[in-house]
Amino acid sequence: METKLRLKKNLIVGQSGGPTAVINSSLYGVVTEALAHEEIGKVLGMRNGIKGFLDGNVIDLGTLSSEELSLLQTTPAMYLGSCRYKLPVDLGDPIYPRIFEALDEMNVGYFLYNGGNDSMDTVDRLSSYAARIGSDIRFVGIPKTIDDDLVETDHTPGYGSAAKFVASQVRQMTLDTEVYRQDSVLIIEIMGRNAGWLTAASVLARKYPGDNPMLVYLPETTFDVPEMLERVEIALHDRHAVVICISEGIHDKDGHLICESPEGGASDVFGNKLMSGAGKALENIIKAKLGVKVRSVELNVTQRSAAGDLSLADVTEAAECGKAAVRAALEGRTACMITMERTSNDPYTIEYVPRQIGDISNATKFFPAEWIIKDGTDISSDFLDYALPLIRGEIYPPMKDGLPQFLYINHTGEKR
Amino acid sequence: METKLRLKKNLIVGQSGGPTAVINSSLYGVVTEALAHEEIGKVLGMRNGIKGFLDGNVIDLGTLSSEELSLLQTTPAMYLGSCRYKLPVDLGDPIYPRIFEALDEMNVGYFLYNGGNDSMDTVDRLSSYAARIGSDIRFVGIPKTIDDDLVETDHTPGYGSAAKFVASQVRQMTLDTEVYRQDSVLIIEIMGRNAGWLTAASVLARKYPGDNPMLVYLPETTFDVPEMLERVEIALHDRHAVVICISEGIHDKDGHLICESPEGGASDVFGNKLMSGAGKALENIIKAKLGVKVRSVELNVTQRSAAGDLSLADVTEAAECGKAAVRAALEGRTACMITMERTSNDPYTIEYVPRQIGDISNATKFFPAEWIIKDGTDISSDFLDYALPLIRGEIYPPMKDGLPQFLYINHTGEKR
Repeated sequence: METKLRLKKNLIVGQSGGPTAVINSSLYGVVTEALAHEEIGKVLGMRNGIKGFLDGNVIDLGTLSSEELSLLQTTPAMYLGSCRYKLPVDLGDPIYPRIFEALDEMNVGYFLYNGGNDSMDTVDRLSSYAARIGSDIRFVGIPKTIDDDLVETDHTPGYGSAAKFVASQVRQMTLDTEVYRQDSVLIIEIMGRNAGWLTAASVLARKYPGDNPMLVYLPETTFDVPEMLERVEIALHDRHAVVICISEGIHDKDGHLICESPEGGASDVFGNKLMSGAGKALENIIKAKLGVKVRSVELNVTQRSAAGDLSLADVTEAAECGKAAVRAALEGRTACMITMERTSNDPYTIEYVPRQIGDISNATKFFPAEWIIKDGTDISSDFLDYALPLIRGEIYPPMKDGLPQFLYINHTGEKR
Repeated sequence: METKLRLKKNLIVGQSGGPTAVINSSLYGVVTEALAHEEIGKVLGMRNGIKGFLDGNVIDLGTLSSEELSLLQTTPAMYLGSCRYKLPVDLGDPIYPRIFEALDEMNVGYFLYNGGNDSMDTVDRLSSYAARIGSDIRFVGIPKTIDDDLVETDHTPGYGSAAKFVASQVRQMTLDTEVYRQDSVLIIEIMGRNAGWLTAASVLARKYPGDNPMLVYLPETTFDVPEMLERVEIALHDRHAVVICISEGIHDKDGHLICESPEGGASDVFGNKLMSGAGKALENIIKAKLGVKVRSVELNVTQRSAAGDLSLADVTEAAECGKAAVRAALEGRTACMITMERTSNDPYTIEYVPRQIGDISNATKFFPAEWIIKDGTDISSDFLDYALPLIRGEIYPPMKDGLPQFLYINHTGEKR
């Protein structure tokens, strides 16, 4: 009996990087799957990622009730808290033995880490160190990012809900801006410094050919101010209200961000450059050059925190990625991340496949050049085929007194 | 038979001012109620308010199918389009006979106008002119504004859904900002230039005593920068993440807007003042003075255009106001606006009462001073009693391909 108990290894899971609306659904998947396997002992959670783990901040997730677990599926942000922390490149650094001693002390056999590029780098380094010292702890990554820029996977959990939110907001703000019979430009700035996947999602908002957004600019192309002004003028001949969707990372031919350009940028009273966003920069430029009414809206963190526009496909897939990670670890896989493979688009089907982390952790999946059309101002319909299945279906958080109910741990450590 | 037909007068309805998420629900109320009364002939809609009416831009709303009418209930923005147009103070202006000739030509007996202060001013002037010339056309206003600043009414349609959206977003962004163990300040800028009702709604987001938002600033008080900095410092002793909700109209003791202050404001390369919002201004000030991570989010037009956080109470009341306006006009009332009277708070009950427009059109209902507590940094629980019934209940737009479906007329005049 005692030997058998000792054979049971504990599983630990962490969340890292920026929040998304569905990363807690992956946590739900991890915990429910792990609890269903007898060979797993405790299901532990590190608070604030590997950084909190180093501080000994670990909690028992096995105490969550089934009602609480279910609530995690529709709770945005990160139940376990996050960190932004890169492990040292040098595997000879004393931090590595410290981590592995702590893992051994907690009898951890399975280490799951949920995040984007940097988090996969953590999985990569820890599994490399495990190989070096002959540890049999298994390290598996679970993907997450609203940017959809991880390679080797069809898409990432978090993207579908963010894309759905962006498209909904663009459609709603388009209606709002079209109520007046007055020439006007609405600029909507969308997250994505290097990859334009989320900005591209704005074209899902269109209901008919020629519908707004009229112009869409991704960071994968060069942004030329005079060319943009020309296109806006042409668009304003056609209709009163022109909606432009831009990625926060749009830049000129030399790679300089538009929000830092002398024309659009601003300085404070001390002469310091103010980073006020590409949308504000373009607002100033268009106002000055075309003399029309211009408004810019930065969707900002609402893109990753909104639980009112959850994609059922996304929430489900996030949970499935978490479950697949548990199974992969149990099957002896390590140094890998769960990827999603689209085996068919009609009907839409996904397979969850663990792949070697080394190929993933330091690469970026850019928006395909062949899907960017009309001289970098529009997106091809191939993207619609890609993105539509990812935003389909709805799941809403339970409501109480008119507001969504979430499960989280507050600053005093209480579950709320 | 022919005489009887001639006795039937047509009803015309217009929308004006800024959009809300439920003004189309009032239109739904007007049209369904008007179609149910035999004594009303056609139900007409003026495109782009009184301005479009003057251009002869009038459509027949009787052709809307019941499915389309139902869709209006959850469609944000303005189906009929809007205008910002104030009628001249001088009733001797030639515009007045022009309007009344057109109304007579269309056999209009009932004129309903849906909007805020300026729109009620239009109702006021037109009914005054009608009295002067002895016209028996009845003019009835339907309230609308997310600002909740119309007098004589408990609240205004549009406020409940905007308040629900604000509280949801504040709760979600609070979770998002609390994931890191790092001192940080999140500033959320909320609409409301003169009245703080919508900013006050941010306190609905709190789940427990001491929860974020820690500080809430309305335009009804004086905003003092050094005092705010002191409070932020104290709050940061208590917790890592401090959320501050501010009204766009916060100002110093001399009435100068914070976004225009020398400390927070910015200039473009030509030295022109950039209006970048109070949130951005405070972000710069707090960063410079306290050296912590600061982010500011301006909710912007999403507050009035979001259909994903509709309050069922609000949608229902908006429709009821529209219906009550039709009945008031039929009963011979004119020069009035439909107001909402809260006859009980538990259970919450509302009566719809037409009141003289003269008292309403040029007044502002400010947030009560006695509900502003802690030296202007917080809101009393009396407000919660007031606001909670207004955000209760959910109604979602029908979804297709993952996105909300709306009914609107596009720029080429097509119904979409």
